[in-house]
Amino acid sequence: MISVREALNTILNNTIPLSAEIIPLEASLGRVLQEEIAADRDFPPFDRVTMDGIAIGHEFFKKGQRAFTVEGRHMAGSPTVSLKSLNNCLEVMTGATIPTGTDTVIRYEDVRIDNDIATIQIEEVNPLQNVHRQGTDRKASDLLIKPGTLITASEIGVMATVGKSEVRVTALPKIAIISTGDELVNVDQQPAPHQIRKSNVYTIQSALNTYCCQAELFHIADNKEATVNEIGVISETFDVLILSGGVSKGKADYVPDALEELGFKKLLHRIKQRPGKPFWFGSKPESNKVVFAFPGNPVSTFLCYQKYFKPWMRKSLGLPSQKAISARLSEDFYFKPELTYFLQIETSSDPSTAQLLAKPIEGHGSGDLANLLFTDAFLELPDDRSEFKAGEIFPVINFK
Amino acid sequence: MISVREALNTILNNTIPLSAEIIPLEASLGRVLQEEIAADRDFPPFDRVTMDGIAIGHEFFKKGQRAFTVEGRHMAGSPTVSLKSLNNCLEVMTGATIPTGTDTVIRYEDVRIDNDIATIQIEEVNPLQNVHRQGTDRKASDLLIKPGTLITASEIGVMATVGKSEVRVTALPKIAIISTGDELVNVDQQPAPHQIRKSNVYTIQSALNTYCCQAELFHIADNKEATVNEIGVISETFDVLILSGGVSKGKADYVPDALEELGFKKLLHRIKQRPGKPFWFGSKPESNKVVFAFPGNPVSTFLCYQKYFKPWMRKSLGLPSQKAISARLSEDFYFKPELTYFLQIETSSDPSTAQLLAKPIEGHGSGDLANLLFTDAFLELPDDRSEFKAGEIFPVINFK
Repeated sequence: MISVREALNTILNNTIPLSAEIIPLEASLGRVLQEEIAADRDFPPFDRVTMDGIAIGHEFFKKGQRAFTVEGRHMAGSPTVSLKSLNNCLEVMTGATIPTGTDTVIRYEDVRIDNDIATIQIEEVNPLQNVHRQGTDRKASDLLIKPGTLITASEIGVMATVGKSEVRVTALPKIAIISTGDELVNVDQQPAPHQIRKSNVYTIQSALNTYCCQAELFHIADNKEATVNEIGVISETFDVLILSGGVSKGKADYVPDALEELGFKKLLHRIKQRPGKPFWFGSKPESNKVVFAFPGNPVSTFLCYQKYFKPWMRKSLGLPSQKAISARLSEDFYFKPELTYFLQIETSSDPSTAQLLAKPIEGHGSGDLANLLFTDAFLELPDDRSEFKAGEIFPVINFK
Repeated sequence: MISVREALNTILNNTIPLSAEIIPLEASLGRVLQEEIAADRDFPPFDRVTMDGIAIGHEFFKKGQRAFTVEGRHMAGSPTVSLKSLNNCLEVMTGATIPTGTDTVIRYEDVRIDNDIATIQIEEVNPLQNVHRQGTDRKASDLLIKPGTLITASEIGVMATVGKSEVRVTALPKIAIISTGDELVNVDQQPAPHQIRKSNVYTIQSALNTYCCQAELFHIADNKEATVNEIGVISETFDVLILSGGVSKGKADYVPDALEELGFKKLLHRIKQRPGKPFWFGSKPESNKVVFAFPGNPVSTFLCYQKYFKPWMRKSLGLPSQKAISARLSEDFYFKPELTYFLQIETSSDPSTAQLLAKPIEGHGSGDLANLLFTDAFLELPDDRSEFKAGEIFPVINFK
């Protein structure tokens, strides 16, 4: 058996290359950018008025002038205008260009206007005040967003501003999610007393939504020949196979042998961890295909997805690894086996210390899928000790 | 002007009632549950084998018996079988029912099997070991998921298990996002020197994806009559109007007057905060419609969306308020005006203390939308002080 760290390294060394595709901006949320987004113009593109008020030449204020004849109004969206007389003023609106001949804006709150004479009511007026100077934020052609960035609402706004109605993003892998186990029936079927309904495949399918992936679902019966044939057919079409069940030591655990028979190279099988010990991972490097064969217990599948699949997926898509998060254990915990233990926890932020607290929410083992409802993360407890004290700090795998 | 707290209270007191709808389970991710999900059977529904191995009656082991004749194999998905002779054993696979007459499973690793005789190789075997007893996790009809729960991957798994192929969720409000401002052109247009492209409406539209909302976009010219007419028409069809721009003191800021003319009641206008001071919020309670009219600067719009719209939306959908998060300021910060300041920050988790750290990432004011790219949250600094020291702790509004 290998350690959790070795397992993760192996998996991250076996990402698959993904091509790029061009999609409409509106469809790009949650995708990974594969081009440089640069400023097409200065930000802002002109000296921009930031308050509604009057625009003057500051030199006249400095010389003591307080009353300015209003030449007219200059609105946002109008081409720039010029003052006719440099000691006059113009009313200007937020978002407008600063009129030629002016350099300073005094907001309406600080001005009295009577009969087209604007009288400034304050004594302190700084040159350039309430003017957002052209190019202050970014210069034309400055790099704004790097390739390998996850597209969130802020990136969408910036890409709209620079006119990217279409963007180049990482193409998504084709993913098949395959359940195994003769005890499983579909969600719309009534199970016999010895049967249960499928759940893992739905959980993973919805979790993959984070990456905008629409995975297809399959089921394979506990039968060696069917396992070989059907995985063979599915792996023709899909880049990534996520299996659930059939990887342990049982007499119906055909998955590892079937995969090796189909030419998949075993890269790891069994990790020093709980839950999820029997996890099998392999690849066919010549055709850029990988298989994540997770143990069938729901908490095992879910943990393996979060701990191993997600970092693999991020790296394959071209994203940097996720920010590390740590939490402080809120009560003593004991776990004897020499395995990394992924403790189910509920996290909360302590308002007096800004610490992330981890409250253990233990279930009844890896079959207890309902327990996941009351948790939002796993705490990763190392394999070299069995006592974990309240107040100690460990890494967190957050999933909500 | 009112305080941030008063503003939020007013907004949360003016949620709108939303109906419920029944949708397929596969479409329910990110929606809000509007029914109780109960266990349809015990969890697990039968005494379930959790390790591949042999099943025996523990009393025989206790009496000293170590070699057990193997009567056969019992697989997951097969109806329960019975031992023919109570001092024999059956090979059993993970997920199978425990055979009648047995109560204990010894895993293959701890057994040697030769010629259909299984000899136990270990000295400690506990009754019921490796058996997940029926009903241990939950009992039939136990409440598993409450109405008002956000449906994540874990809820999907549990709902699949109990056979909910369709679920009742909160119906989504119809949302229109309306830009105003004659300086704005579309993302696919080349702006003239005094124009800029729209960005806020795209940012909000994509942010609304969190709630599975597909909002429609509109634009209204800076013209009083058009503003009244077009908002009038849009508000016939939509429940929620989100406007951007036109709410300040400018001569082209027609939005507040137009809304009041259309029968919307002003509930707040101007908040003691930066950015986002000119925010206007109102409603037409008799028709369950609300209007969020945000200031047009991109950082103002974004902050108001995060600080006010999101809690309103969560409450309208029936969700509890979001978990509070706090962060520790990493450097001194000074802000003089008597306004709540929403400081743009980048957060990180300190691995040695489990504290969330807030690093100020100041931009050039509320027009600097590119600055948002380098931040992931706002830190809410109170209005009653101007000096904020490194190490002090404040609430966080997280948006990535």
